[in-house]
Amino acid sequence: MRGELRLTAGKAAAQVAHAAVDLARRAESRDPREFQTWWAGGQRKVVLQVRTLDELEDLERKARAVGIATAWVEDAGLTEVPPGTRTCLGLGPAPDSLLDPVTGALDLL
Amino acid sequence: MRGELRLTAGKAAAQVAHAAVDLARRAESRDPREFQTWWAGGQRKVVLQVRTLDELEDLERKARAVGIATAWVEDAGLTEVPPGTRTCLGLGPAPDSLLDPVTGALDLL
Repeated sequence: MRGELRLTAGKAAAQVAHAAVDLARRAESRDPREFQTWWAGGQRKVVLQVRTLDELEDLERKARAVGIATAWVEDAGLTEVPPGTRTCLGLGPAPDSLLDPVTGALDLL
Repeated sequence: MRGELRLTAGKAAAQVAHAAVDLARRAESRDPREFQTWWAGGQRKVVLQVRTLDELEDLERKARAVGIATAWVEDAGLTEVPPGTRTCLGLGPAPDSLLDPVTGALDLL
């Protein structure tokens, strides 16, 4: 999540849920076995924050370079941010061995 | 969401995302056409809060009585709440005409 947007908790949660649903659907159709491993393991989700859009774009590049699925969330902008604002980036599901080098230094939201 | 649990924004977002993924998967297998309508319409998600678990259980009864799908989220309790705590209840997807009478009086999270 872009922490500097200072979204309300509910708005932030909706953005994260958009990314999660998108990534889960893609994972299930792309690799059902990997999806089931993630699902059976409690569908772990960790919500982290960055300070700027640049940081998020940098994360996307790093994730793609190692084959982690990514999903941008753009807000329709009806309430808290201008239309089309990129509010968050979803990554995964992926094993910790892939994710940790990309996201391990970020703070929790 | 149970507002009285005072979860961090990130923790709350993860709980909401659990409910969203669960409900989206069930909707897609149960009624692909209704799911596509929701998906194409921007996959709208609204995050609301109640004050107590009793209120959430009451919402579940009301939702089920009119055929709205429901999904409980229990937290594994590794960090902010005891293991097995019911943190939130997901409802839908469903048309506004069904949801509004059940959730219309609640505050946004």
